[in-house]
Amino acid sequence: MKKVAVIMGSDSDLPVVADAIKKLKEFEIPFEVKVLSAHRTPAQAEQFASTAAENGFGVIIAAAGKAAHLGGVIAAYTTLPVIGLPIKSSTLDGLDSLLSIVQMPSGIPVATVAINGAANAAILAAQILALSENTLAEKLAAYKRKMAEDVMKKNEKIQSEVDKI
Amino acid sequence: MKKVAVIMGSDSDLPVVADAIKKLKEFEIPFEVKVLSAHRTPAQAEQFASTAAENGFGVIIAAAGKAAHLGGVIAAYTTLPVIGLPIKSSTLDGLDSLLSIVQMPSGIPVATVAINGAANAAILAAQILALSENTLAEKLAAYKRKMAEDVMKKNEKIQSEVDKI
Amino acid sequence: MKKVAVIMGSDSDLPVVADAIKKLKEFEIPFEVKVLSAHRTPAQAEQFASTAAENGFGVIIAAAGKAAHLGGVIAAYTTLPVIGLPIKSSTLDGLDSLLSIVQMPSGIPVATVAINGAANAAILAAQILALSENTLAEKLAAYKRKMAEDVMKKNEKIQSEVDKI
Amino acid sequence: MKKVAVIMGSDSDLPVVADAIKKLKEFEIPFEVKVLSAHRTPAQAEQFASTAAENGFGVIIAAAGKAAHLGGVIAAYTTLPVIGLPIKSSTLDGLDSLLSIVQMPSGIPVATVAINGAANAAILAAQILALSENTLAEKLAAYKRKMAEDVMKKNEKIQSEVDKI
Amino acid sequence: MKKVAVIMGSDSDLPVVADAIKKLKEFEIPFEVKVLSAHRTPAQAEQFASTAAENGFGVIIAAAGKAAHLGGVIAAYTTLPVIGLPIKSSTLDGLDSLLSIVQMPSGIPVATVAINGAANAAILAAQILALSENTLAEKLAAYKRKMAEDVMKKNEKIQSEVDKI
Amino acid sequence: MKKVAVIMGSDSDLPVVADAIKKLKEFEIPFEVKVLSAHRTPAQAEQFASTAAENGFGVIIAAAGKAAHLGGVIAAYTTLPVIGLPIKSSTLDGLDSLLSIVQMPSGIPVATVAINGAANAAILAAQILALSENTLAEKLAAYKRKMAEDVMKKNEKIQSEVDKI
Amino acid sequence: MKKVAVIMGSDSDLPVVADAIKKLKEFEIPFEVKVLSAHRTPAQAEQFASTAAENGFGVIIAAAGKAAHLGGVIAAYTTLPVIGLPIKSSTLDGLDSLLSIVQMPSGIPVATVAINGAANAAILAAQILALSENTLAEKLAAYKRKMAEDVMKKNEKIQSEVDKI
Amino acid sequence: MKKVAVIMGSDSDLPVVADAIKKLKEFEIPFEVKVLSAHRTPAQAEQFASTAAENGFGVIIAAAGKAAHLGGVIAAYTTLPVIGLPIKSSTLDGLDSLLSIVQMPSGIPVATVAINGAANAAILAAQILALSENTLAEKLAAYKRKMAEDVMKKNEKIQSEVDKI
Repeated sequence: MKKVAVIMGSDSDLPVVADAIKKLKEFEIPFEVKVLSAHRTPAQAEQFASTAAENGFGVIIAAAGKAAHLGGVIAAYTTLPVIGLPIKSSTLDGLDSLLSIVQMPSGIPVATVAINGAANAAILAAQILALSENTLAEKLAAYKRKMAEDVMKKNEKIQSEVDKI
Repeated sequence: MKKVAVIMGSDSDLPVVADAIKKLKEFEIPFEVKVLSAHRTPAQAEQFASTAAENGFGVIIAAAGKAAHLGGVIAAYTTLPVIGLPIKSSTLDGLDSLLSIVQMPSGIPVATVAINGAANAAILAAQILALSENTLAEKLAAYKRKMAEDVMKKNEKIQSEVDKI
Repeated sequence: MKKVAVIMGSDSDLPVVADAIKKLKEFEIPFEVKVLSAHRTPAQAEQFASTAAENGFGVIIAAAGKAAHLGGVIAAYTTLPVIGLPIKSSTLDGLDSLLSIVQMPSGIPVATVAINGAANAAILAAQILALSENTLAEKLAAYKRKMAEDVMKKNEKIQSEVDKI
Repeated sequence: MKKVAVIMGSDSDLPVVADAIKKLKEFEIPFEVKVLSAHRTPAQAEQFASTAAENGFGVIIAAAGKAAHLGGVIAAYTTLPVIGLPIKSSTLDGLDSLLSIVQMPSGIPVATVAINGAANAAILAAQILALSENTLAEKLAAYKRKMAEDVMKKNEKIQSEVDKI
Repeated sequence: MKKVAVIMGSDSDLPVVADAIKKLKEFEIPFEVKVLSAHRTPAQAEQFASTAAENGFGVIIAAAGKAAHLGGVIAAYTTLPVIGLPIKSSTLDGLDSLLSIVQMPSGIPVATVAINGAANAAILAAQILALSENTLAEKLAAYKRKMAEDVMKKNEKIQSEVDKI
Repeated sequence: MKKVAVIMGSDSDLPVVADAIKKLKEFEIPFEVKVLSAHRTPAQAEQFASTAAENGFGVIIAAAGKAAHLGGVIAAYTTLPVIGLPIKSSTLDGLDSLLSIVQMPSGIPVATVAINGAANAAILAAQILALSENTLAEKLAAYKRKMAEDVMKKNEKIQSEVDKI
Repeated sequence: MKKVAVIMGSDSDLPVVADAIKKLKEFEIPFEVKVLSAHRTPAQAEQFASTAAENGFGVIIAAAGKAAHLGGVIAAYTTLPVIGLPIKSSTLDGLDSLLSIVQMPSGIPVATVAINGAANAAILAAQILALSENTLAEKLAAYKRKMAEDVMKKNEKIQSEVDKI
Repeated sequence: MKKVAVIMGSDSDLPVVADAIKKLKEFEIPFEVKVLSAHRTPAQAEQFASTAAENGFGVIIAAAGKAAHLGGVIAAYTTLPVIGLPIKSSTLDGLDSLLSIVQMPSGIPVATVAINGAANAAILAAQILALSENTLAEKLAAYKRKMAEDVMKKNEKIQSEVDKI
């Protein structure tokens, strides 16, 4: 199976990005995690992106906050699908990160998920890889059934909590 | 090659969605276009989404505006990657469409592109399919080179326009 | 009297939704509470909505956050009035929830109340049911008078607090 | 059947409000239209609202723009359900109207529909009245089926338009 | 001297409004404080506003949050200058309060100050009354000089703090 | 009677500001109009503001757009009430102008009216001056009655327009 | 004198950028204009930025819209001051461009001017270069005086326009 | 070397501004810190700005929050480059500060950095001064290399943290 790269602009993003890593482990998808900055290590970001396909990566998750250019800079150097994960920072509640990532100009898409939506970034990567990996597709289907069952269990339990209100 | 589905919530979205269709034709990707509404034809949307994988689709592009639930509703019934295309409507400049699509809760991602970013929705679909289609990967690489050349040609021509200012 | 359904997308919404439940109890309106997700249990949501009228429900309150599709998905399967309650989540201060709920396209309204405005969702449900329930209409009128009296009592007490400033 | 009141803050809102009136006529719901301003004719607004129930009204639609207080002022004087219709004005794209209407404090709800969503205001009024009017409930069900059929017809026609792209 | 009325929509606004009361005391302006709600005690609000001028008030400060209609409703019943003070509530950071107050339609102005800008509401009231009260005008001039002196003292002290950085 | 100064940051603001001038003429309030820029003619702005009181002005209306500092700069040099009129410019729909004017720090209020709300700026100025001018107070009361009558006339005429829908 | 580089992400930005070019010509500052895209020609952007200082440039103006990464990408490869010029595009009124440019993370500043504020980008470049170019400093001082005189002339002319209102 | 002035509107801004001061010390750039308010000490602000160039300053950093006029007022009285630093205050998350600073009208630029981006304000000042100070240019280049090395070290360390997730 092709690998997923999880790139973050700063190691301070790890507490959020951790949810993506957990999901990749849960789905047994091979992955690598890197700290790479579009602005502080542009040469390394370019080097990574332009060799990602030949190095066995299939999908790249790029997490960044504020003027979040990482996803766009990575996407400039590869035709692999790039998933942008906007990180909420200390001002503007993540709106700056979201707009900086999702509003990419024509020709260079970045597949954007919710602000701090790290788990979804990993699930989206899994959905993409599952197109040619039947085992992974089955895991995703099982995960979907599990989510439904969890909601239904919560539905059963809610009545006792409602009675206490 | 797996097919791309291009779903729109209303046929009035076609002028924007057309850019996605052009790109899919340009990349010679098989595709089908449907008008399906999360709110007006929910049963049909469910029926389409829950059988999309077995019907040969690999990626679904869902275009919708305002309280744009189409991508999320489709994603609820399939584990195929769903690309959300927010359509700008007559109020709020597309911000409502964008937030309704990108802010999906954990477990059900929708890969969101820019407001009215139809071409990018198709390119992202191509990038996803290209992971197991070498010919398509080559087309994407050629398209990337072509974009760079176009910018460089424009760069050459700009001087004469600057002189006129 | 017809019942009110209080649906929430996640049991984590209960602390906010509790204010609606309190008000329904206060007005002695029959109600049921369910955890149902537009994205994780779409089939159950559809099943609930399409049989809600025949199961004795008159109004449905749907509480959800982020890309809050629950109200719209419920409204797609019923002609009962659906009240949308936007839940504030950890980013964007509830604006995403609000726009995802209130900006419904033509044909499928969702009656939206304030972000986290759970009490008002219940009062609105009561106002709707009171059109054919005189006793409930009287309770609403009494509640209105009580609110006015509470404000007037606070007005009387404020002077002593002002003196301390 | 109880009547619907359609109140607008200014006669300049009529072009938007017209869609509500069309829908009320289509559903054969008795209605009255009034120009009443929360700020310019507060006494008349109070007079109307405090006698609306006894005058045979069941639902009040209040359309207003900018600092749109009409719905809240009406709701202050009645326990009938009040539907707020935010009108887009020349600045801020309707966001001011929306927030002024939807963010009502606890105790006095206004059921808010989309910015300029006049048709939905009328459909919501119909859904409320239909709880005790079976004929109207059937009309709403028929309208819902008609909407689905219209989408499906558009779906059939879209292929020929796609071929031209 | 004419009195200032300080009206708040809820006694929970008092901690913010207190800054206005302090300033009015500081300037020795006669004032009265009232809790009056546009939505919960509309009749009392009307009664207050329509008799405010004859009761000796010269300026009315109206503090309210969320869909903040209090200022507009007061202004509808008087031609005295009304100062709107937007209160920040638990969602949307005061933007809803601000837009609900400042975006008044033509004919009925509300003089709006900053979100939670209670001191400025009182200073503005003082500036208005000072037009016909020379003593108050002198107090305002002295207050202005005092503010400048305070800044200049802080400027002198800042260097020692800068040295510690 | 004290004069009103109408200051605008650029003569391009005159088409909006004209509504304020019309209202001042209508109320027969003496006024002067000036083009003064906080940024391009700061010395002249200072000169004007610091002598405005002694030159017979009672209220200053300051109209400006974008980073609209004019009102704040004027208010820094006078204790006269300053009314800020935010002008909508070609981007951001007036939100930048509004926030730049209304969010004044403690100590220096600017009484802000709606974006492009020029008529209200003049009416507010009239309300302020009317505190010590009975004739003006009577004109304002008459204007209020006239507004109510106009709405009531429009209410009478609306039925015939409704019939055509 | 060091040269100014004027870089734009797309030649469609030229109508806005033209105001910067006019100002540079007016101040007789040597400059070069280039079309360079952070996403379509990343290698060329890198090449330009990393050699800009040695090629005689002193300041770089980078104009881009939507997810506007150009300024940040240029700044990643040089320590020359980079001026970011946010271009308004067809959605979101330039807010996305502004936030993508101004919210740069610590270590890599981009000096941001107003949305579509092309003239100011050039004036800022001139102010920077003028620190070591006395002639340019004098031109800037003269330009400032000229602006003040223009405002004062407009002030003189406004009275006749006011009389016509 | 020319000096940098660091001006703040209130001494409460010092905790944020401290990062700018640290960077200036780190780069050994001569600087002075002042508390000066556009609104409370306008005469002192004018006096400072109009003599800044002759007093040996080369760049002015102006930090302010809310309706942040300080940068614009300083820029009105000097042709030195002025760097605007928007300070996040207790409401609106810094958006008001940002727009009040960055949206300057044509002719008077303020070079704006991120909300609370104090370090970048200092680095930008250093970049400007470095155009005629080779030693400073070398320090900036070394700082840039150091930032890259820090990221690369964090990249090496991240794997062990990822293993723990």
